[in-house]
Amino acid sequence: MKTQPKRFTKKELPLEQVYGLLESGPVVLLSTARAGRFNIMPMSWHLMMEFTPPLVGCVVSGANYSFESLRKSGECVLNIPAENLLKKVTACGNVSGESVDKFEKFGLTPLAATLVKAPLVAECCANLECRVADRTLVSKYNFFVLEIVKAWVDARYKQRRTIHHEGEGHFMFAGHRMKMATPKTSVFTQKD
Amino acid sequence: MKTQPKRFTKKELPLEQVYGLLESGPVVLLSTARAGRFNIMPMSWHLMMEFTPPLVGCVVSGANYSFESLRKSGECVLNIPAENLLKKVTACGNVSGESVDKFEKFGLTPLAATLVKAPLVAECCANLECRVADRTLVSKYNFFVLEIVKAWVDARYKQRRTIHHEGEGHFMFAGHRMKMATPKTSVFTQKD
Repeated sequence: MKTQPKRFTKKELPLEQVYGLLESGPVVLLSTARAGRFNIMPMSWHLMMEFTPPLVGCVVSGANYSFESLRKSGECVLNIPAENLLKKVTACGNVSGESVDKFEKFGLTPLAATLVKAPLVAECCANLECRVADRTLVSKYNFFVLEIVKAWVDARYKQRRTIHHEGEGHFMFAGHRMKMATPKTSVFTQKD
Repeated sequence: MKTQPKRFTKKELPLEQVYGLLESGPVVLLSTARAGRFNIMPMSWHLMMEFTPPLVGCVVSGANYSFESLRKSGECVLNIPAENLLKKVTACGNVSGESVDKFEKFGLTPLAATLVKAPLVAECCANLECRVADRTLVSKYNFFVLEIVKAWVDARYKQRRTIHHEGEGHFMFAGHRMKMATPKTSVFTQKD
């Protein structure tokens, strides 16, 4: 059930480069472990908060089964799916982990993370192992501050066609890319 | 200098629909007013936190001139530019408002907002008037919780090709769109 493929082909990404994966707003699959049971939920309510160590804030509704898993374990993985996984991503968002093993039901593969108990989703092109770093606003807004402690990518991540939710099941997909000049003092590069 | 075009052609968007504008992660232009002086900065570090009233969290570096404007005035507008404004957006991110009137320098048009003193950027396809709602994490993370109190869109917003930053001046642009079925209990629709 919790298949561990033998070949771990992901490559480590330096933590200071991680922000570029999240600040464009992709739907991520948040995976958790709770009493040895894995779960996954799609999430769009996240933001970068610091470059190094990389901090990510996210809101997980108390109505989601993942809320308690994240709150109790203090750990998760943010997995970045590309367009090829759209059907599985929406399927994961349409049922609760309370009644279903979503890895098994939707044919997703859990991979052992290195620093947290939550699993990586093998099919995603990037996987960010996280620990809860600040719970100040959890009770008021369900807002967790996570520290990314390890980041993995695979060969596809630079061309990833990320999935972006625009409300009520409307999705937008990453289109073309462009590099613009930015001096070191730019808000697009500053790291203090 | 602070031109007020005579025709205000924007249409009001119901506040409960606003989240779809932000959760896909577009670069926004954060506009502020401080002692009657307007400023603009591009920002990618934001997330939705609540549907109604719509709450948005954002991190504004203390190194930015806009930080003090936002902190002192407690108000701002989040303006959503599309790809046609890319050059102006990056230009706004490459100089400081301390030395430059960016509206004037980059040919952007301030429009009077209805509930806040910060201006709308007329050229953007959506404009969200905001008031700071929670400062708990400002000192630790420069993290502001904003309440969106009024939302405006123009005719282009449904086809908007939003700009998404992927780090170090690399940008991705909104590509094609698709609607997927989501039951009312989905994480993609739930509003509790």
